[in-house]
Amino acid sequence: MSERQKSSNVVWHHAAIDRAMREKQNGHKSAVLWFTGLSGSGKSTLAHAVEERLYAAGSRTYVLDGDNIRHGLCGDLGFSDTDRVENIRRIGEVSKLFVEGGTIALTAFISPFRADRDRVRGLLAAGDFIEIYCKASLDVCEGRDVKGLYKKARAGEIKAFTGISSPYEEPLNAELVVDTGSQSLDESAELVMKLLRERGIASK
Amino acid sequence: MSERQKSSNVVWHHAAIDRAMREKQNGHKSAVLWFTGLSGSGKSTLAHAVEERLYAAGSRTYVLDGDNIRHGLCGDLGFSDTDRVENIRRIGEVSKLFVEGGTIALTAFISPFRADRDRVRGLLAAGDFIEIYCKASLDVCEGRDVKGLYKKARAGEIKAFTGISSPYEEPLNAELVVDTGSQSLDESAELVMKLLRERGIASK
Repeated sequence: MSERQKSSNVVWHHAAIDRAMREKQNGHKSAVLWFTGLSGSGKSTLAHAVEERLYAAGSRTYVLDGDNIRHGLCGDLGFSDTDRVENIRRIGEVSKLFVEGGTIALTAFISPFRADRDRVRGLLAAGDFIEIYCKASLDVCEGRDVKGLYKKARAGEIKAFTGISSPYEEPLNAELVVDTGSQSLDESAELVMKLLRERGIASK
Repeated sequence: MSERQKSSNVVWHHAAIDRAMREKQNGHKSAVLWFTGLSGSGKSTLAHAVEERLYAAGSRTYVLDGDNIRHGLCGDLGFSDTDRVENIRRIGEVSKLFVEGGTIALTAFISPFRADRDRVRGLLAAGDFIEIYCKASLDVCEGRDVKGLYKKARAGEIKAFTGISSPYEEPLNAELVVDTGSQSLDESAELVMKLLRERGIASK
């Protein structure tokens, strides 16, 4: 390549398509919607319900949850303290890439520790990290026990299970608390949409 | 939540917004464009040039390269053999998430080993992984030495540097070979765009 092309190399790296251009193309701001709460509190259900509403409004979204993360990107990680921290760190970093790519990333992980969630918040610019606490009591979540995990945890078959043998640290300053223990899915999803409209993330 | 909502939980997980719906929304197919080649062969420059063309055509894209991966998602990895394998594995997994999200992911990493590239190919469905070999001779790349890395490698300051003290395994069945050693950036980018149009990934 000529000298001209060498310098255009530098230009490409700095004049690349950026987040603002993607947001303009998409017609909405990007952000991370970080759903946190006990197993069975409805995080993934709510995230997908919100995604469906955003899609209907023409927005670009992607849900990161156990289904697409635990067997892929984080398939090498177990459930030790170190691995749990690394799991949340990677999810945070990937969310950041999606946000830079103009997409609304919705994450649905228990993410029980404040320090881990706050570290992800710190990766992102102010306003880009929207913590949504899916608040349902242990009784309600254990009563549902959709995956049978609480039963196993009570039987000692799962160690360090959040709510049973490992703590869940409630968010202190979540952008939104949704009472997923008593509200319907529609009511819960509408609360999230209202916040997103207020923040210019959802257009309608 | 009622029993009805519990079962709607299951429905949400399976009836979620899927790749086909996103591709329809975006008006193009998604894929991974995996640019591979020596340091200085023009991978990142070419990826960004292709991205600019795709953006102009209204497509959704995202470039993964050293700038946004090495200090973030893979910031915990060094350059040992094990860490290099893990680096490419994670990039492959993240690319897959972008593809599921309807986005054309462009990756620009030396990725010198066939086994690592083929592992990423194996993660994806047939046709989703498009290997683009940026073919430029060591002489040309070392002559450019934009980042001064070859000089350091020759001085022994960088160990296991691809092309100098560590092998580069040329692709055997790349979807496209671009002679980035002698062609202009425009010519190279147009070759990639031609392939993408043929495959229905670029619309124009």
